[in-house]
Amino acid sequence: MPTWFDKKGSDSDIVVSTRIRLARNISDVPFPSRWSEEQAKIVTEKIRAAASDDFEFLNLDNAPELNKNSLVEEHIISPEMLKGKNKALLLSKEGDKSIMIGEEDHIRLQVISAGFDIEGAYKKADALDDMLSDSLDYAFDSQFGYLTQCPTNVGTGLRASVMLHLPALRMAKRINLIVGEVGKLGLTIRGLYGEGSSSKGDLYQLSNQITLGISEEQTCEKLKNIAMQIIKTERELRKKLLENNPDELPDSVYRALGTLKYARMLSSSECEDLLSKVKLGINLGIIKEVSDEKITQLMIKSEPAHISLAEGRVLSAKERDRVRADMIRKVLDEGRD
Amino acid sequence: MPTWFDKKGSDSDIVVSTRIRLARNISDVPFPSRWSEEQAKIVTEKIRAAASDDFEFLNLDNAPELNKNSLVEEHIISPEMLKGKNKALLLSKEGDKSIMIGEEDHIRLQVISAGFDIEGAYKKADALDDMLSDSLDYAFDSQFGYLTQCPTNVGTGLRASVMLHLPALRMAKRINLIVGEVGKLGLTIRGLYGEGSSSKGDLYQLSNQITLGISEEQTCEKLKNIAMQIIKTERELRKKLLENNPDELPDSVYRALGTLKYARMLSSSECEDLLSKVKLGINLGIIKEVSDEKITQLMIKSEPAHISLAEGRVLSAKERDRVRADMIRKVLDEGRD
Repeated sequence: MPTWFDKKGSDSDIVVSTRIRLARNISDVPFPSRWSEEQAKIVTEKIRAAASDDFEFLNLDNAPELNKNSLVEEHIISPEMLKGKNKALLLSKEGDKSIMIGEEDHIRLQVISAGFDIEGAYKKADALDDMLSDSLDYAFDSQFGYLTQCPTNVGTGLRASVMLHLPALRMAKRINLIVGEVGKLGLTIRGLYGEGSSSKGDLYQLSNQITLGISEEQTCEKLKNIAMQIIKTERELRKKLLENNPDELPDSVYRALGTLKYARMLSSSECEDLLSKVKLGINLGIIKEVSDEKITQLMIKSEPAHISLAEGRVLSAKERDRVRADMIRKVLDEGRD
Repeated sequence: MPTWFDKKGSDSDIVVSTRIRLARNISDVPFPSRWSEEQAKIVTEKIRAAASDDFEFLNLDNAPELNKNSLVEEHIISPEMLKGKNKALLLSKEGDKSIMIGEEDHIRLQVISAGFDIEGAYKKADALDDMLSDSLDYAFDSQFGYLTQCPTNVGTGLRASVMLHLPALRMAKRINLIVGEVGKLGLTIRGLYGEGSSSKGDLYQLSNQITLGISEEQTCEKLKNIAMQIIKTERELRKKLLENNPDELPDSVYRALGTLKYARMLSSSECEDLLSKVKLGINLGIIKEVSDEKITQLMIKSEPAHISLAEGRVLSAKERDRVRADMIRKVLDEGRD
């Protein structure tokens, strides 16, 4: 099946992906935390009927844990979808659009794109939202906008985000500064799956926090502008980093590549570190023999559920480290002269 | 020019080289520490005349420092030959035999062979000694044997040694134990260029200490037997090491190879560590894509004077680290599929 991370996006030296998520609920039905199984069934069928044939339906209540975890690793579903019952997923055949049913709200529709593509992703999400609203009766208040379980989503129900690779900002110890700055502007930045400034593989997610009293277009515009500033700063710092370490930086990124190509065991966290270094090396033009897309793909394919799924069974941490190293060696050796 | 380390010797999984050294002096001439320039000149000319055309003459007083240091790194001359004046070298065209003139004694003749070859090396040294003694009047006492400046060499004047690669014994922390054991037997073992149990690249030199009251044959026989015991123990410990670390050891030796193949800067000491690991990996059958001979050659070619000599000038430590990494990458990529 195709995935968003098979593609090369714009500004992919820094922006791994762009996501647009809209929270929607059906009127006169309790939120998923309080709906009955019967109500869940009816709503799920309604949403399924509202979606075009372009979507595959997946009942997450019956789906194997590994497959669900793997969808979380691909950012197709949120970690909340792993908990509780009455959860389903509609996933577009191109792998770019998903409709989570029974998350915090009845509907969380999401569009994910490789690279920096806020406008494009929003257009797709808006079109999908229009399609669903044709046959669904959304809970909408003329004063507040879309009603959601959590007050932080009321209004547009929009969460727009970009996943950024910020190794130079992290090395310059400037992430916390940015956390504070974007906070004042109504945005938030945090390490992937982490809190505050901790991160895996120098990946950070920048997203809007405010959904009330601001239009969808304004939200996207703001996110885009602030992201562009961060991208600019990261690029400048990368250049400086190389200027100040003309021998040390190439050495460090090439050693990371050497370890990835030769290690027989790789833990998840070491792997993230090494891939981050190699990605930096590629995007600074130091490493030319590996593509940036391959590294982005490996960042996801090397996560625990993907590793176990590739072997078709739940692996111990040690087995995973071995399979991960084998897989990475194989992928990095593909297309070698 | 051919060198001893171009060849593959016996038991080369553990024994890097065998050396036989004989100390000789010309009678009625003061030892080099006290000879006059005139006396040095006469003795040097005599020795030069006594050697066959098979030897090249090198006046070390005029030789560039880099070349002299490089000869030390190849174990062709001793570090003592770098100090003071009136020193010369006769080196056989095959690179296996050398005659140091003006070291501690007038003559230090040496044969060096790849691998474990005490008898072979001794035979060559004995033949060379015979040849020289035909036209030279050695200082010899019927009671004490050959007279030398230092009492520890009086008698046979023979120092027989083997250079052993002992990573498993070092990891098992058994080197100090061996130091004590061989000491009781009149032998000594020490880290290469180091004292006691410190070593570079897990290389240790085992040699006889006693030259008085023991024949040349007995000395060689004893060294051979004790070396064989150490070799046996090292082989057993290596096997156990792999049995106990079936994933960790391959991971460790392959990571070392990956770093050697990808680093852009390699310090001398890191390089020795990495080469030692790779050598262990090759000799345990883990690494098959690189030959043991290549690693032994790299152990010498990566030493500081060799690195500078390859560039034709004295390099700073940082420049050397870069040139070393470049050279190693190049050599390891030779003959790659």
